[in-house]
Amino acid sequence: MKTAILGFGIVGSGAYEVLEKAGYEVKKVLDIKPHPELGDKLTSNFDDILNDKEISVVAEAIGGLEPAHTFVVKALRAKKNVVSSNKHLICTYYDELLSLAKDNNVKILFTASAGGGIPWLFNLKRSLCADDIIEVSGIINGTTNYILDAMETSHRLFNDVLEEAKSLGFAEANPSADIDGLDLARKIAISSSIAFNTVVKENQVSTLPLRNITLDDIDYCKTLGKKVKYMSYGIKNDNTLSVFVEPTLIDCNSIEASVSTNNNMVSLYGKNVGKLSFYGQGAGKYPTGHSLACDVIDIITGKASFEYNPKELSVDNNNLKRKYFIRTTSDVSGEIVFKKEQVDNVRYIITNYVSVSSMNRFAKEILLADEFAFIAGFEEK
Amino acid sequence: MKTAILGFGIVGSGAYEVLEKAGYEVKKVLDIKPHPELGDKLTSNFDDILNDKEISVVAEAIGGLEPAHTFVVKALRAKKNVVSSNKHLICTYYDELLSLAKDNNVKILFTASAGGGIPWLFNLKRSLCADDIIEVSGIINGTTNYILDAMETSHRLFNDVLEEAKSLGFAEANPSADIDGLDLARKIAISSSIAFNTVVKENQVSTLPLRNITLDDIDYCKTLGKKVKYMSYGIKNDNTLSVFVEPTLIDCNSIEASVSTNNNMVSLYGKNVGKLSFYGQGAGKYPTGHSLACDVIDIITGKASFEYNPKELSVDNNNLKRKYFIRTTSDVSGEIVFKKEQVDNVRYIITNYVSVSSMNRFAKEILLADEFAFIAGFEEK
Repeated sequence: MKTAILGFGIVGSGAYEVLEKAGYEVKKVLDIKPHPELGDKLTSNFDDILNDKEISVVAEAIGGLEPAHTFVVKALRAKKNVVSSNKHLICTYYDELLSLAKDNNVKILFTASAGGGIPWLFNLKRSLCADDIIEVSGIINGTTNYILDAMETSHRLFNDVLEEAKSLGFAEANPSADIDGLDLARKIAISSSIAFNTVVKENQVSTLPLRNITLDDIDYCKTLGKKVKYMSYGIKNDNTLSVFVEPTLIDCNSIEASVSTNNNMVSLYGKNVGKLSFYGQGAGKYPTGHSLACDVIDIITGKASFEYNPKELSVDNNNLKRKYFIRTTSDVSGEIVFKKEQVDNVRYIITNYVSVSSMNRFAKEILLADEFAFIAGFEEK
Repeated sequence: MKTAILGFGIVGSGAYEVLEKAGYEVKKVLDIKPHPELGDKLTSNFDDILNDKEISVVAEAIGGLEPAHTFVVKALRAKKNVVSSNKHLICTYYDELLSLAKDNNVKILFTASAGGGIPWLFNLKRSLCADDIIEVSGIINGTTNYILDAMETSHRLFNDVLEEAKSLGFAEANPSADIDGLDLARKIAISSSIAFNTVVKENQVSTLPLRNITLDDIDYCKTLGKKVKYMSYGIKNDNTLSVFVEPTLIDCNSIEASVSTNNNMVSLYGKNVGKLSFYGQGAGKYPTGHSLACDVIDIITGKASFEYNPKELSVDNNNLKRKYFIRTTSDVSGEIVFKKEQVDNVRYIITNYVSVSSMNRFAKEILLADEFAFIAGFEEK
């Protein structure tokens, strides 16, 4: 069984090196740019891969929806196994791609699409063989963790750290997918789809932005014994799911609070196994390349498992209630307020229990009145 | 493929429940005590299992060396796959059992033998398919982590917490294997054997005891920005290994420092993947039972990998140097001292870099002069 890699960018070239070094032949690499070091292996024509009977695993590392989607669909229809590191693709076409793999009796694996170098999705799937998952959650975006950690440890402004993250290649020129939560929403949607054997779409994930956090917020939270982390959650309650992405005040002594720089830490809570957490590099050439390569090798060595029989399980963010932290210059009052402190014209509010959906609506109102307000979940334990 | 479980204690009964609930039949259970709930499945005669052609996986959860060793050897010779949660057995007979499995073309898996409910050994092995491991290390004993955490958070004496741990079932009546490091030595020996594809015996692991730690030590270390954790290490340096178990002063902000109660956190450092850490319950009926059950299911579903071609790689603890912390009433002086502080008749010493072996010898001298001295590794980063 030979492999083709689609896209010779950071992840694709990392996976190429890892596979070749481990003794697994990469027969073709698809890229539109010249790569003389690849010699005859390089092609810009996907049909060279599709029509090559020796290639039975296609590793997609192009990113984005097109042409990745077209290529992956063609590969599955041609009964080639697929491996992908592309969260946008997997999240958007989850049901289509997994059904297609099943119908064609091939495998599709995408461990590297959420958690980068961490074998998170792989272990999540493995734990399902003999456990019921009740929650998946954690820090699943390295860029925003880097920003929060740098703000806290070196007391620098959000925008200054963001610019630094851009210059280091951690953040995109347009950082919205990170700091407004879309990247996290896709990863927790994929994680929740696996954990709860269903299909969660990115637009079902309730999301609060991180971008308004200030040094003052971080300092204030510290006085409460809390650190702010940009957390993602998929939680089962009876017969519905709550799936949401929120900056969250977590206990300073929790393991998540100790996650520094651009690392990730994601956890599953199983009825048997309890809390199991996985920590490591959520991005990067060799970590993510290694993760993609391990999926390829699992397929080649016959160790990959693939089952797809999703159940209807609706996402309803009205069903989970938590407390929130709000920092705003506009007035917030009424039943929602559990505790309020005012310093000059700034209100620091801890709310009573509110559903994720209600707070999402309310956050929009607050941000209309005070575009710089910061709203975050508040974990009590 | 059907399974037999040897031993119906905490782990064996946990694995039984997990397997049955997941739809995998346990055909026989070996135990010498009566268990009416098991009906016909219970036997006290191992031959009932050995001679049953339907049973192709034997899950050993008896613990200790005998009769576990005899049963496992017979099972492998009868070409039955073996799964074990028994660190004492695996560590002692590592080469014999893995060779026997290979010769008989069956599998032996033992994820639950180090890390309990954490799929640590499983992931360590998986990462090897495309990476070189340079270090394995972490917190791999729940009892001593519970003691250290309770001493620190509730400022109670070592012996008081140890008694509490005994009453909670976390610690044995004779706690030496935990507080003197033998349990940790076995687990890091097994982890190092896998990580570096060799055979490390428990008596090759250099071990410093935890039992002399006091509240005063914990407070003093806090003034240095450090927490004490009972750490285990397997580190590759060029062509030898250093394998050692030592109380260690680690940075208060490290992820290991945030591991509370009886949890474990173990890490691998891969050339490709960087640091990957695994956190969870290192013991307990359902976590460890789940881990044993997952190994069984991996075998039944054909997903288990098993290769055994160990290399000669000698353990030499002279080759790794680190700093140490020493608290003693006896005098320590000379080149070894980097920093010394004396309060009344108590000396607090940070050493210069010393090899693990040298410090092990020196620790014995110190303890002869001051039987209550506390000696611990000192991590600089």
